[in-house]
Amino acid sequence: MQDFKYFAPTKVYFGRNAEQNIGADLCGRGYKKVLLHYGGGSVRRSGLLDLVKGQLEHAGIAYAELGGVSPNPKLRAVRAAIPFCKEQGIDFILAVGGGSVIDSAKALALALANDTDPWDVMTGKATPTKALPVGSVLTIAAAGSEMSDSHVLTNEDLHAKRGASSDLIRPVVAFMNPENTYTVSKFQTGCGIVDIMMHTMERYFTCDPDTELTDRISEGLLISVMNAGRVAIAHPDDYEARATLMWASSLSHNSLTGCGKKYFFTCHKIEHDFSGVFDHISHGAGLSVVFPAWASYTYTNNVAKFAQFAVRVMGVSDTLPPDAAAQAGIAALKAFFHEIGMPVTMAQLGVPQDAYEQIADLTTANAAKTVPAVVPLTKQDLLAIYRLAE
Amino acid sequence: MQDFKYFAPTKVYFGRNAEQNIGADLCGRGYKKVLLHYGGGSVRRSGLLDLVKGQLEHAGIAYAELGGVSPNPKLRAVRAAIPFCKEQGIDFILAVGGGSVIDSAKALALALANDTDPWDVMTGKATPTKALPVGSVLTIAAAGSEMSDSHVLTNEDLHAKRGASSDLIRPVVAFMNPENTYTVSKFQTGCGIVDIMMHTMERYFTCDPDTELTDRISEGLLISVMNAGRVAIAHPDDYEARATLMWASSLSHNSLTGCGKKYFFTCHKIEHDFSGVFDHISHGAGLSVVFPAWASYTYTNNVAKFAQFAVRVMGVSDTLPPDAAAQAGIAALKAFFHEIGMPVTMAQLGVPQDAYEQIADLTTANAAKTVPAVVPLTKQDLLAIYRLAE
Repeated sequence: MQDFKYFAPTKVYFGRNAEQNIGADLCGRGYKKVLLHYGGGSVRRSGLLDLVKGQLEHAGIAYAELGGVSPNPKLRAVRAAIPFCKEQGIDFILAVGGGSVIDSAKALALALANDTDPWDVMTGKATPTKALPVGSVLTIAAAGSEMSDSHVLTNEDLHAKRGASSDLIRPVVAFMNPENTYTVSKFQTGCGIVDIMMHTMERYFTCDPDTELTDRISEGLLISVMNAGRVAIAHPDDYEARATLMWASSLSHNSLTGCGKKYFFTCHKIEHDFSGVFDHISHGAGLSVVFPAWASYTYTNNVAKFAQFAVRVMGVSDTLPPDAAAQAGIAALKAFFHEIGMPVTMAQLGVPQDAYEQIADLTTANAAKTVPAVVPLTKQDLLAIYRLAE
Repeated sequence: MQDFKYFAPTKVYFGRNAEQNIGADLCGRGYKKVLLHYGGGSVRRSGLLDLVKGQLEHAGIAYAELGGVSPNPKLRAVRAAIPFCKEQGIDFILAVGGGSVIDSAKALALALANDTDPWDVMTGKATPTKALPVGSVLTIAAAGSEMSDSHVLTNEDLHAKRGASSDLIRPVVAFMNPENTYTVSKFQTGCGIVDIMMHTMERYFTCDPDTELTDRISEGLLISVMNAGRVAIAHPDDYEARATLMWASSLSHNSLTGCGKKYFFTCHKIEHDFSGVFDHISHGAGLSVVFPAWASYTYTNNVAKFAQFAVRVMGVSDTLPPDAAAQAGIAALKAFFHEIGMPVTMAQLGVPQDAYEQIADLTTANAAKTVPAVVPLTKQDLLAIYRLAE
């Protein structure tokens, strides 16, 4: 087991009445002016935005509004929001939405507190030492940003999507009502299921020995997400299934499933340049194509763990030899992704073969860098992985 | 799934170098004077206390010392410490030890911040609104107090042991080096294993439907603890086994394994009056006698969950009828407790039959109250449970 630090301080109000706690909780924190941050019209149409405003107004909390956050949130929009927030004297950001809105809030929280450019944070040029506090009213079970230390931003000029992590941006509070995810489409629900599973699997498939506790927690989470995922796709308003996905989204990315492990988030790094280049690609859909191909390409570096996954999570017979079990587990997971309506090939994802070179160059800085992994991946490795996804 | 609140803000430094973070972490928090709180001579003999002092001194942090905390920490000692802490201007308490020391620190933290008597907090007469911050350098994997919201105190005059919970006393930081538990005796290691498992099992055996995610996380934790427990008993200096027990002690009682459930901590309530009356009884040893008897007495209220436990955790065949599986699971757990050297009968625990009436009266306020449970337990139920443990 590797030494680790664990810090997941977010106060979570979970359940059918989660939003009823917004006013009292935020009032007790004593912020002067809240930025109500959100995306498109769905939170307006559903009435959630009005409900949140009602909570703030009833508690006497001043707020300003800033909507329009796009999926794969954009650097330009975050930059544009900075003067408005300064002018308004914002000292707390409440994201009403999913991972994109929360990530945009985190980028703003760092830029405002450190008076720095948001992209400098993503590239490591700036080293933030503080952040405005962030909270969320969650509407999509997927990214886990509601408890995580990370955020992702897309630079439209560079066609680059980058992530950055810091305990400074762990949200202080999250209001999570599974009913708010009933209207998430089947496709976006599927993307969420893949993203949730990937946050655990990226941490699971490491070569660290003696991580049984974290492994078994991860396996339990993955089984639960698959079971609930099937139900939520078939019955979008099944409370229990939506609740399981929502809580799993937080636990999968709040660091719990990585304790004691050295992990790389390799598939995320591979995927980011697909959804960075092609704006039509959802992160979860990209991952559902990348993961089975990556796994098939690299499982031989870690047969025992892939076999363990196959038996404990995918129900593969434990009488198979490890190599065969590992392959059967990967195939079963790919079949599950297909079953819930996710793409599993480049064609289904809408990526033409002639884009491979450009994307692999982006991910490897023109073949100058490798992608961190148990065995680091070169540009040639990436091209081979893409081809395995055809 | 029940609505729930989840809040586990403790920053955990875990691993072989955990203590190396003490100075820098506490320095960053800006406290004026730390109370170094500990128990008997073991932390002195092991050199851990000197190491902690060195960290504080190197970081320029002022501190005062208060040792002598006993197992099952006592009200009188906490009361006696209050004037000293006030005089010293203590604004942070660092517990170096196990659950007893941390619980004593929590009782002090509430009494000092609210200027109230510690027993009034336990009885509910006082309602604290704040607490001094508490941290720990953990030396025993058992109580989970290093991340929990609860603490237990014994009133020697009343022969009463009571627990109280509040988010105010969630420790802000924990330094957890599994090597510091190598010297814990086989017996106390066994007590710890039982206590860790019980913190999860008290939350597990509820009748709430649709708690698969929390159930599976709990089952994974229980399996890991049993596997690591066997190793730690046989090889006290096995790092990985000690690390698994230590991290499981925190996760088992930081609320994770109770999310979405309504639970009662029935066995804890039954046991507390055994170790309250008989000072020779360790909490974990009391629980290892109480649980199998309680389970045998009440499993018929919840056969499906006991059968699930039997199959998923204890490896009982899933071809058995639920009732037989449930019984086999309880028997297997009792056998495991026996295997790791824990008592499983009242005689082994050193409780004479003629003490039953007194203890049952304490737990039920002379039969005036029932013990909260899926089906609340009367004094007669308690006596029947005691007899099942003969």
